[in-house]
Parts: sequence; structure tokens; C-alpha cells
Amino acid sequence: MKCKKCGQKAVIDLRQHNIAYCQEHYLEWVLNQTERVIEKYDMFTKDERLLVAVSGGKDSLAMWDVLWQLGYNVDGLYLDLGINDQDPYSENSRQFCQQFAAARQLQLKIIDIRAKYGETVPEMASRTKRGHTKPCSQCGLVKRYLLNKEALDGGYDAILTAHNLDDEAAFLFANVTHWSLDYLGRQYPLLPATTGFARKAKPFCRFYERETATYAILRGIQYVYTECPYAVGSKQMRNKRYLNLMEDEQPGFKTQFYLGYLRALKKGAFPHHQEKAEDLELKRCTNCGQPTRSNGVCTFCRLVEDA
Amino acid sequence: MKCKKCGQKAVIDLRQHNIAYCQEHYLEWVLNQTERVIEKYDMFTKDERLLVAVSGGKDSLAMWDVLWQLGYNVDGLYLDLGINDQDPYSENSRQFCQQFAAARQLQLKIIDIRAKYGETVPEMASRTKRGHTKPCSQCGLVKRYLLNKEALDGGYDAILTAHNLDDEAAFLFANVTHWSLDYLGRQYPLLPATTGFARKAKPFCRFYERETATYAILRGIQYVYTECPYAVGSKQMRNKRYLNLMEDEQPGFKTQFYLGYLRALKKGAFPHHQEKAEDLELKRCTNCGQPTRSNGVCTFCRLVEDA
Repeated sequence: MKCKKCGQKAVIDLRQHNIAYCQEHYLEWVLNQTERVIEKYDMFTKDERLLVAVSGGKDSLAMWDVLWQLGYNVDGLYLDLGINDQDPYSENSRQFCQQFAAARQLQLKIIDIRAKYGETVPEMASRTKRGHTKPCSQCGLVKRYLLNKEALDGGYDAILTAHNLDDEAAFLFANVTHWSLDYLGRQYPLLPATTGFARKAKPFCRFYERETATYAILRGIQYVYTECPYAVGSKQMRNKRYLNLMEDEQPGFKTQFYLGYLRALKKGAFPHHQEKAEDLELKRCTNCGQPTRSNGVCTFCRLVEDA
Repeated sequence: MKCKKCGQKAVIDLRQHNIAYCQEHYLEWVLNQTERVIEKYDMFTKDERLLVAVSGGKDSLAMWDVLWQLGYNVDGLYLDLGINDQDPYSENSRQFCQQFAAARQLQLKIIDIRAKYGETVPEMASRTKRGHTKPCSQCGLVKRYLLNKEALDGGYDAILTAHNLDDEAAFLFANVTHWSLDYLGRQYPLLPATTGFARKAKPFCRFYERETATYAILRGIQYVYTECPYAVGSKQMRNKRYLNLMEDEQPGFKTQFYLGYLRALKKGAFPHHQEKAEDLELKRCTNCGQPTRSNGVCTFCRLVEDA
């Protein structure tokens, strides 16, 4: 296997593109591909102030590294969810983020949820019906709320998340097999800002997980290897397993599935479900002032207020 | 496992419904379910003349038997495709259909494609680019054309095919993973008649394959067990394998996937793709007079004319 560009020994084989690269040209390819995706979906520019959500995993740290190298103005945000019951997952993740930012002299904001709201996310969730056995849906709520709030309060132009192609394909697969039309109408790599909501972008949506992992390893980025302990056995994991089987038998399957969906959206599939947040009747939370569909106190404030 | 109705020993366990039945009540359930589906999708009535496409397999013979028992006025149509190269597949299938019809004194029309058009379907296909290695797409064309022609020429009110839930789910899965919007816009259990096209209905679309097989066996229907030799290793088979894995891990998956899709269609998920045949600009084949999208001779006539 030889590098397509220089003929040296390749370090990675991109089956779906039918090309291989050496270390130098692979790193260059990742940078170019990211730049291309940012431009293609008109995500953001180098003049804007960006906030990347970092988890301490390979995807978000690799993405922050890529954007920093490309010259984007990007700060990090780490939400310490307090998931340390089985192993020090949040502790370790936080440290990787801090080391990463310090080595590059990048700004990292940390929100320690227990310090700020009196309870960890698993503790908050355990008091609710849905979160009693698994905190995942409550955790999603907390993350969405705080990312949006921090982006708006900090005057950022956009929030970036490092969802990769495997993530997006698995989410799409769940939405399609359950025909969740609301999600199918707007699983786009860019969600424009609307009243009360910051712009959201996913510049890594076209990279396979193995590509982001390879990038992180080649760049010497230290990241947390373990998955969140609560993710084990999740529906998302099951869907990833199905898609891995399909990808093994039909290389490029995930790319084609995801890009086919984006084309279908453009051709007018799921039209009644492409409504923007501004079309929804949103109220303001009487406690925090953030947008909410409920009357009175928003779901986030209701979750934390009993803490 | 006991019958839900009478408490006798059950012969089948319907996992997705969480019920079991004895032989007598299972056969009754199949009849009731079929009647329900016919009514729900407003497929046809007992006053109409129906034509069922029979292949000699479990699904089509079981369906013909059910409709006959329910008192529908239904004739059979067997297309002898001439697939006898590896084993006498078409020969055997034809005999099962003939035995079935004779035992019930039902009308069965047989079209022997080689006798009528000079070549078997694999022979015709072997002369084409797409059909060179596998005749499946040409075979589909021949079947669609002849079913429609026979229904119209014979003055039938509708053509019925015995696609089961496994078939429909696998077809839907292919359409969704490839985002084939034209098919996604109209994979409905009933296609109304339009100029030049007979009404088409799929009364067995809600039964799992194992349910139709159980019915056929319990009713003592003799049918061809082997699959068409050309179907082995097909994309349809691969998709059925994926869906079987999902159904095993999540009983009821196929039902939910298919019914969710039908609901999504009703909610307008694929609006630009629900165009009816009448909206298409159709011409008439200058040779056979059947509707066609091409100018001059239709694809079927082009396929057979060189024979």
C-alpha cells in the first residue's frame, strides 16, 4: 500500500475513496477535507468566534486541533458531567482536554456541573422517571442546554460538535427505522441560528471514526479511550454494529447512506418537518430566560431545581 | 404455549403480537387478518374480478387459498419464465400451481414465455447489458409487463401479488438506504388503476414469511421450496439477512419499520415523489400499444423483438 501522493509507505487506506496516504499526506488530507466541508455547507469563517464542544475523546480533540491548524478562532468548552461512579471517566476526560488546550495555549472553559448545580448528571437523572435506569436522555438535555447557553452568553457565532460519519449514520439509521419525521427533517450538518438558539455545525460529519482516530494518533493527541460507561448496550451502539456489518460488506455504505439523505432533503423529502425553530411557538423560561416549548420553567431548570 | 382462543396446544407463536394459536384458530386468524388488510387499504370487493400472480411458492398459493376461502372471485396467472437450467425450477413451480388450481377447480392461466416469444427469460436477458450476468432486472420487467397486460386484456379489476412483510421491508430497506425517492413515494399496499395500468394490491403485506409458510403447511398446500436459483446472493437476500438480525434482536422490528413508513407517507414525507402514473407523460408503444415512457417501441417489445 503506497501513498497516492508521494509513493512512500502508506499509513492508512481509505477504502471508500480507494486511496491510501502516508502520514504527511494523510494529515494534509484531513485538513483539506475539513476545509472543504466547512465551505460546502457554509458553516463559518475565519473572522468568526467559534466554540467547540470537547469531550476528551478522539473526535472532538482531533477537530479542535484541525481547526486550530487551519487558523480558525476557536475556544473549547468542556462540560464536566460528573460521571465517575465506575471509573473516573469525567475526571480523565477533563484532564485530556486541559492538557490539549495548555499545550496549544488555547482557551478552554470548564463547567463543573456538580459545583454549579449541586449534583452530577447521573444524580439529577436518577430522580427522574426516564433517567432512572440510564441518564442518557437527561444528559443529552443538559448538554444541549448548556452548549447553547454558553455560546450565546459568550457571544460566539457558532457551536461546533465533532459528530463523525459513524455517529451521523447511526442517528440517521435510528430516525429512518423509526420514521422520526421531526429529526429526519433537519439532520443537516449546519443548523442556522434562530431566536434564542446559536448556530450549530458539524465539520467532521464526513469522516469515519477510524479516520479521526488515525488522525489523533498520528498527531500524538492524548485522548480518553473508553466510551462513557452508560453508552454500553445503547441503541446507538446497536445501530453502529448494524452499520459496521453493512460497511464491511459494502465499503462506502455509510457515506452513501448519509450523503444520499442530504440529497433527498434538498430534493424536498420531509418538507413539513423542516420547520425552523423560529416557526415554533417558543416561550421564555421564567427562571433562566432560555427558549422553551413549555409554559413557565424550562425542562433544564425543572431538572436541576430539585438539586 | 397455549392457544389464546381455546387454550389447546398452540402451533405458532406470533412474537410481535405476543399471542399463540392452535391450528384451527391460526387459520381463522390468517383469514381475518387478510380481510382486515383488504378493507383497511380499500383494495377490492367480492363483486370484482381479481387476478392473482402465482409463482408456485408458499406466499402466492397461500394467498390464493385464503382469498378463495373468503369468497373472492379470483383467477390465477402463472408466467412460465423458463428457468430450468440448473434444476427444473419453473417446471416444478408450474406443476404446483396446476395441482393447486385443479384441486379447487380454480381458473389458472399459464403463459409459456418461450412458446410465445421464442426464448426463455434468462435467454432474453443474456443478450442485454444489464442482464448478462443475472437476468433479475429483465425478469422483473417481463413480469410487470405481462401481469399488467393480462389483467387489462382479461378485463380484471385488479392484479394481486403476494408480497409479504419480509419482502416489503427488504424493498423499503433498499429504497431507504439508497434514498430512491421515486420508489419511496409509492411503496403502498394499493396502487390505484390509471390510464394503461391496472390496479395493483398486496393483501399479504402484513404477514411475516414464517406466517405464510405455516399457513401453507397447515393447509396441506404443496409448493416449491427452493428459491429461484438467480435470487441466491442477491441484494434483496442480503437486505433480508440484515432485517432478520434486527427482527431477532427487536421482535416486531419489520412490522414497525413498514407501518412507520406507511404513516410517514400519509404525513407527506415524500410529496414530490407521489406522482401518479397519469401525471407522467406516457406514450403508447407503437408495437404493442401498452403505455411506455419511451418514444416508439416499449422496453418489453425491444427485449423480445430480437428473439
